[in-house]
Amino acid sequence: MTHVQVRHTRNHYPASLPMTTHMLKAQNVRDKVSTSFFKIDIHTHILPPSWPDLKEKYGYGGFVQLEHHGPGCARMLIDGKLFREVEENIWSPQARLHDCDQHGVDVQVLSTVPVMFSYWARPEHTWDLSKLLNDHIASVVKEYPRRFVGLGTVPLQAPELAIKELERCVRELKLPGVQIGTHVNEWNLDEARLFPFFQAAEELGAALFVHPWDMLGKERMPKYWLPWLVGMPAETSLAICSMIFGGVFERLPKLRVAFAHGGGAFPGTLGRIAHGFAARPDLCAIDNARNPREYLGKFYVDSLVHDRLALRYLLDALGEHCIALGSDYPFPLGEQEPGKLIESMTELSDDTKRRLLRENARAWLGLNKEAVFNPVIQAEYF
Amino acid sequence: MTHVQVRHTRNHYPASLPMTTHMLKAQNVRDKVSTSFFKIDIHTHILPPSWPDLKEKYGYGGFVQLEHHGPGCARMLIDGKLFREVEENIWSPQARLHDCDQHGVDVQVLSTVPVMFSYWARPEHTWDLSKLLNDHIASVVKEYPRRFVGLGTVPLQAPELAIKELERCVRELKLPGVQIGTHVNEWNLDEARLFPFFQAAEELGAALFVHPWDMLGKERMPKYWLPWLVGMPAETSLAICSMIFGGVFERLPKLRVAFAHGGGAFPGTLGRIAHGFAARPDLCAIDNARNPREYLGKFYVDSLVHDRLALRYLLDALGEHCIALGSDYPFPLGEQEPGKLIESMTELSDDTKRRLLRENARAWLGLNKEAVFNPVIQAEYF
Repeated sequence: MTHVQVRHTRNHYPASLPMTTHMLKAQNVRDKVSTSFFKIDIHTHILPPSWPDLKEKYGYGGFVQLEHHGPGCARMLIDGKLFREVEENIWSPQARLHDCDQHGVDVQVLSTVPVMFSYWARPEHTWDLSKLLNDHIASVVKEYPRRFVGLGTVPLQAPELAIKELERCVRELKLPGVQIGTHVNEWNLDEARLFPFFQAAEELGAALFVHPWDMLGKERMPKYWLPWLVGMPAETSLAICSMIFGGVFERLPKLRVAFAHGGGAFPGTLGRIAHGFAARPDLCAIDNARNPREYLGKFYVDSLVHDRLALRYLLDALGEHCIALGSDYPFPLGEQEPGKLIESMTELSDDTKRRLLRENARAWLGLNKEAVFNPVIQAEYF
Repeated sequence: MTHVQVRHTRNHYPASLPMTTHMLKAQNVRDKVSTSFFKIDIHTHILPPSWPDLKEKYGYGGFVQLEHHGPGCARMLIDGKLFREVEENIWSPQARLHDCDQHGVDVQVLSTVPVMFSYWARPEHTWDLSKLLNDHIASVVKEYPRRFVGLGTVPLQAPELAIKELERCVRELKLPGVQIGTHVNEWNLDEARLFPFFQAAEELGAALFVHPWDMLGKERMPKYWLPWLVGMPAETSLAICSMIFGGVFERLPKLRVAFAHGGGAFPGTLGRIAHGFAARPDLCAIDNARNPREYLGKFYVDSLVHDRLALRYLLDALGEHCIALGSDYPFPLGEQEPGKLIESMTELSDDTKRRLLRENARAWLGLNKEAVFNPVIQAEYF
């Protein structure tokens, strides 16, 4: 039996909250070895089980629809064309919790699937869709307040609307932050028109999760899933560089940002990036005079690098206080047993593992901050 | 006095070859501390001091011209627009040797500047330009056979012509290989039409140096030199992935390929790439059934990562027998004192340093192979 179920089902689970089937099941697997680490998975994706036909609702195509075609099976379609096959665990909280219990994941941080960002659409429609997705995520968190923390999505192509929706996420829906893309149509994250949004996030104490989407150079990568394997890491490096060189971190030192996939290509190429800055300040230091190395350790990345040496490098390069477990659940490019890589690294102390598996997520999400915090989780776990 | 000058000027330098000014100068700096390592720099760029007006010669624009505008200063122009300011050391062997002597570099491997590839032009014109550049490089090697090894360039958009020029480079010009781009217009390096070229390189025992150019997503990177800092590493990862997933390394196990800039973004993201392969063989394993990890250590990268931790990671991830000193001389994104990073790493044994600074370059270039070898360097150094 994992520690999660021990706590939930035997010691602290209040009678007033319903037990899930998986929690009940867990009582029958008490002989399972406990990992003894509390795990928050900061990178998981969720969709509502259904939503209105957006082409019909907004009057033009390009949006994602979910077509259920069998028990626990559905297709994400864009204008009738298959984008991705998905299973029940993308929409069913119960199926997710079953998997969490299997792998000792205590808390999942929920965010939408990046293809849902819809920054390309008319702002009022992206806003409307964002509300729908955010209300859904908030409802899932409300149903299982001990197991889920939610991140919203915002119409970032219209920063003033994005700020409104961010405020609603934090103040009304009690979400600790939002997920955004590595770029917004033609804008990189240094874009001046995005700065008020970042400023609002800092003021609200909202966490930002930056996820690659709409990959650069994808037209150059017709085979081998390379937009995901080469394009996404490049997107994330572009996003980190844009926030550094554009002075966003410099001007907003309290902004808490986490980047997906271990920061993509950025950490492995940071020597080149920092050297480039030093070698050509006329090109690089135009908006921020500080060397990129000064920002190492000042933003978060998830742990999703699928490689012991790479995670070791990440720890050495960025520091152990800014890497947090992220699995990309429930997708195949993710860590299928969230936290397994971290837990398997015998060279890491338990203290380091605790940071990677829980503490850093907590710090990034600001889960100790009243304003944006889910009080049930706080009382229960921290 | 560095070891280079000791060897060249006092012990082994044959009277039949002219001493350079720098060699003569070196006799006056004998008190300089020797680094004791022989250094081959596999990544340096050279241009002829001048060439014909290519727009006039071929009848259309887009080619690079060199405009000398002062003593030791020139501009690379494309259709009259500045591409890059360059100095004497891009065209003058003497200036290069002066810098080499300053930094204890024994041998520079010369290749053209990637913007000269001109794969976009009509094949016969790229071929003509390639011949001009290759003849120039061969002439520089001939003049200073102890200090320079040359790599050619080929009209890779027309593989049959590229093979002809490759054969000429190896057989007539005695160059040990050629430099190619990370892609050829619309083709990535898995393109079936390129395979005969790779096959010819293997048969000839020619080394290939793969350098990023024409960076993907550059239209998304208007600021901060990001096509160089984010685009180039992505290009190189794309090239390595294309050769792995496309089965080029699998089908040509004796082909010797080195990638610039420490392999770009590939090494830092190899966990994701290998996991992607395993997770979605339907997308990734369509041309080669082997996991990308099986090719680690089977291709070379240069050492140009500008970071001690990153080089340490590279050594751990790829192995110390496949990383060779490369400085990107004479450009500002390069290592300004070639080999300094390697030499400064006290945790590396002298044996490892020797591999990185000389042996791996020698193995990659096939400098122990009669057919493609410069016998003067062989007799002198190995």
